[in-house]
Amino acid sequence: MKYLFTNLIGIFVLDQDCQIIDRFMFKDGTAYLEKENEEKKIHQKYPGLQTLNEGKLSLVLGQFKDRKYYSEFYEKNIFLTKLAIQKSVNEDQLIIQTISNIKELDRVNNLLVKRLREWYSLYLPELAEEIASSEKFVEKVICEAKVQLIKEMNVRETMGADLKENDVKEIVSLAEDIARLFDLRRKHELYLKDIMQNYCPNLLELAGTTIGASLIELGKGLKHLALLPSSTVQLLGAEKALFRHLKTGSRSPKYGFIHAHPLIQEVGKEMKGKAARSLADKLSLCARLDYFKGEFKALDYRKELEEKFARKKK
Amino acid sequence: MKYLFTNLIGIFVLDQDCQIIDRFMFKDGTAYLEKENEEKKIHQKYPGLQTLNEGKLSLVLGQFKDRKYYSEFYEKNIFLTKLAIQKSVNEDQLIIQTISNIKELDRVNNLLVKRLREWYSLYLPELAEEIASSEKFVEKVICEAKVQLIKEMNVRETMGADLKENDVKEIVSLAEDIARLFDLRRKHELYLKDIMQNYCPNLLELAGTTIGASLIELGKGLKHLALLPSSTVQLLGAEKALFRHLKTGSRSPKYGFIHAHPLIQEVGKEMKGKAARSLADKLSLCARLDYFKGEFKALDYRKELEEKFARKKK
Repeated sequence: MKYLFTNLIGIFVLDQDCQIIDRFMFKDGTAYLEKENEEKKIHQKYPGLQTLNEGKLSLVLGQFKDRKYYSEFYEKNIFLTKLAIQKSVNEDQLIIQTISNIKELDRVNNLLVKRLREWYSLYLPELAEEIASSEKFVEKVICEAKVQLIKEMNVRETMGADLKENDVKEIVSLAEDIARLFDLRRKHELYLKDIMQNYCPNLLELAGTTIGASLIELGKGLKHLALLPSSTVQLLGAEKALFRHLKTGSRSPKYGFIHAHPLIQEVGKEMKGKAARSLADKLSLCARLDYFKGEFKALDYRKELEEKFARKKK
Repeated sequence: MKYLFTNLIGIFVLDQDCQIIDRFMFKDGTAYLEKENEEKKIHQKYPGLQTLNEGKLSLVLGQFKDRKYYSEFYEKNIFLTKLAIQKSVNEDQLIIQTISNIKELDRVNNLLVKRLREWYSLYLPELAEEIASSEKFVEKVICEAKVQLIKEMNVRETMGADLKENDVKEIVSLAEDIARLFDLRRKHELYLKDIMQNYCPNLLELAGTTIGASLIELGKGLKHLALLPSSTVQLLGAEKALFRHLKTGSRSPKYGFIHAHPLIQEVGKEMKGKAARSLADKLSLCARLDYFKGEFKALDYRKELEEKFARKKK
């Protein structure tokens, strides 16, 4: 009776007393990954080889406690761990990083536009009052500067100060950099859509880019999201309110991220909770379809929801 | 006996009973600002005109309470207020806005570089470990990307994932935008130095750009800074610790912003408090010299301090 035993460092043939009588050592980690070929060869060489049963396992493992094997185990282990880390990166990670950066950029742009408004107000206070949208304000500052440099300065009708050209330039270069950050945000959104189109078309269709990506982010990946109950999906992004509810008994939240979804925005206030539940149901189904590579059903779901909400409105 | 009375809307000649017998109305706010010329003309027309004494003033002012003057007063007032706002912008405001934005940019860059490190670690985790400096890391990401696009992908020795080219591009465009923000920060510093060279050369020389500007920011302008006692200058930027000291009796702070000054950094720990006091003394003098347009003495002060601190070290 002979046994076959394979571990990280090699393939071993053992006699009935578990002594090694033949061995094939892997020369590197890659050889270990392709061990099936070598195992076949050894099976041909020793016909009738058996797998070790559990009782004898400890007997064999003891032999490998020897110091001389240590460095070999160590190296192969590092190799395999690095490989596992490398393979662990998938679309989930890319989506999570991108949506996180979109949120970071929103925060950053808020900070910088606030500063720009204050700074530019020295020069043209009327503009900061007039334009509420951050992005339009930044655009206007840039284009205004181009016009102003041509016009004579004293034509301006404003209570702002007559700044020198290089004072204004300094402000405008801030505006230009903010405009670039807005561009980057838009670029990120397109990129996100591009990934999601292949990775989770159903979720993308029903939830939209930002909400879909946020769900994957908070669900810690598509797989985990697909396994969550839909009631959890409904509340993703409302953790703070949920735990406050559990702790202090305040009212439970009705929705998390999906509150920003157009379908929820459209229905009346008293229906929002129910609508959020229906939407979360469908979103959960979408995530499952996407994870298990199912069909594309999101359009049907959307239609279904639209009809349902329209009926409720009456 | 005739009197001359001037207010926002015109110049009036009054008889001894304070009745208006002649008037010159200003056609706009600018005319009011150049009222001296018209007053001279009227003095020539009515020789021996006197200024109203306080007793009769209320008698005259009563006449202007009439509704018909209301809109004229209102318009001129608005005009003058706008003008005052316009004139109130001086170098102080520019310095304060610029240094505030430098601090804003530091905050923003911290946020974005943190995100970049995490995101780029999917691709090349070794780099984020290796390079501690934010700015160098951003540069390296950009230049690494250029090299990698030429090289074959599988030459790389890393446990990072083999991302597709457009996945890497997305990360690199974030890095490029961060690099621009670092550039903007540098530009701001040069601009600040440029303003301060004329506006407060002494403070610039002794405090340096960032600390000097921070002092003006927290001192709410050079004028106010010049009027502060030097013990306050010493603690600018340490308000939190100071109020904690006053409230709870914890140890009083020894220095605020000036802690970052090279002269303070150099002296031993037990001397820092005394060194901060000497430095604050001289900085306060610098601010006063600059505000009252005094001579350039900062270099002498610096020398004096250096000698003093060197003596203490022994």
